[in-house]
Amino acid sequence: MNENRFDNKLSRPGLAFQPLYKQVEEQVTQLIVEQRWKPGEMLPNEFQLASEFGVSQGTVRKALNSLTSAKILTRRQGIGTFVSEHTGHHGLYRFYPLIADGKSPELPKAELLSISTQTANKKVAAALSLNPKDKVIVLIRRRILDNEFCIAETIYLPHKWFKALLDEKDVPHTLYHFYQTNFNLTVHTIRDSIKADLATQSDADTLNIKLGEPLLEVTRIAQSLNDKPMEYRISRCRSDKYHYLVELN
Amino acid sequence: MNENRFDNKLSRPGLAFQPLYKQVEEQVTQLIVEQRWKPGEMLPNEFQLASEFGVSQGTVRKALNSLTSAKILTRRQGIGTFVSEHTGHHGLYRFYPLIADGKSPELPKAELLSISTQTANKKVAAALSLNPKDKVIVLIRRRILDNEFCIAETIYLPHKWFKALLDEKDVPHTLYHFYQTNFNLTVHTIRDSIKADLATQSDADTLNIKLGEPLLEVTRIAQSLNDKPMEYRISRCRSDKYHYLVELN
Repeated sequence: MNENRFDNKLSRPGLAFQPLYKQVEEQVTQLIVEQRWKPGEMLPNEFQLASEFGVSQGTVRKALNSLTSAKILTRRQGIGTFVSEHTGHHGLYRFYPLIADGKSPELPKAELLSISTQTANKKVAAALSLNPKDKVIVLIRRRILDNEFCIAETIYLPHKWFKALLDEKDVPHTLYHFYQTNFNLTVHTIRDSIKADLATQSDADTLNIKLGEPLLEVTRIAQSLNDKPMEYRISRCRSDKYHYLVELN
Repeated sequence: MNENRFDNKLSRPGLAFQPLYKQVEEQVTQLIVEQRWKPGEMLPNEFQLASEFGVSQGTVRKALNSLTSAKILTRRQGIGTFVSEHTGHHGLYRFYPLIADGKSPELPKAELLSISTQTANKKVAAALSLNPKDKVIVLIRRRILDNEFCIAETIYLPHKWFKALLDEKDVPHTLYHFYQTNFNLTVHTIRDSIKADLATQSDADTLNIKLGEPLLEVTRIAQSLNDKPMEYRISRCRSDKYHYLVELN
């Protein structure tokens, strides 16, 4: 028996015993992270990719299928395979679940109330995998739907990646698309923890509601393509006329 | 130009212009609905299915991939493709999003407080696509986690499908598995609308909390494999120690 067969030191970490298509999948993701292909760009065809990676076309297809299910890639019938963008109806609404009762989903406007640099507190540092004392950029916004304030948001971003944001004159309403185009950071997964809470005086002032009204508090961690936490967001949402919608299968 | 080409009367409704694999997908779903294959049962292999449906193996594979993504089928590596069941870790937790803060997901026990037959009110009839005056079975339960009451549930089921439930001596805690095994009705998709509300006196009595505490109200419509609404459920959830978790990509 060859002892080396079980010597993990000889196999590349993370790649050992992975099916070939999974390795291709990771490689393609890595190339997107490195901006070899940018959001919205078309990938080479399966034949070219197969030859570039030295695998069969079937393996490339399996990897691309998996990346399409994960929404990292987007297929356009008869045209080709593209790096997904946070634009268009699907991209913009995918992570926006608060909907006015009895209405179709609509993106609220955002009013930026303040932007500052702070030292991350314990909770924020843990959520963003930062060291204690690391700096974060803090955006405070309120969202507006049909001329009414619906959400008070506090957004924390790692300073090391987002410092250029402090020089922006106009921070756009659609932040995820902005992160993607200006910082090459794509929100790939989100994890929302939802609780009910009572409006504080600060909520009441920001949202123009009464103290003690019930609110939804949505605490979100957004992860990038390579599974790093890139945004921590606390949204205090009115739910008298709005609901958070989840559809699962 | 052949006028008949655009005469929709000549094409089968719903099948016209659908890719072949989509038609195979619908056919397989229909056979599961008709119990040709039951939950947990293994399907014939791709070769046999291709020959049965008179299509290529590639088309069968595409249909099975799509049904696996939709969680109607489950693949077991090296064994085969099975009709998904509401059992096992994944099946049981898939639609159960309330989690104790800082803990792993755990299924709460259920205490059945009452079971009755009622005439559907407007809201319930609309949610379940029933006629006004149609009967529904109403279950009232409370859920228990770590010896504490966490959720007060009111569950509405169409009487026409679930009347045998009235004769059950022991209604099990895991209803979705019970619907599947005893009524051949599989919950395939759920749609949760989440709001924040204040505990009423009835919530306070049921959950042993104070009047006016903030609660999550989760209003759920569950649909069967053939997209018919089969259960309407209102869950009033404590959120002081629990949160509703959503993960999206």
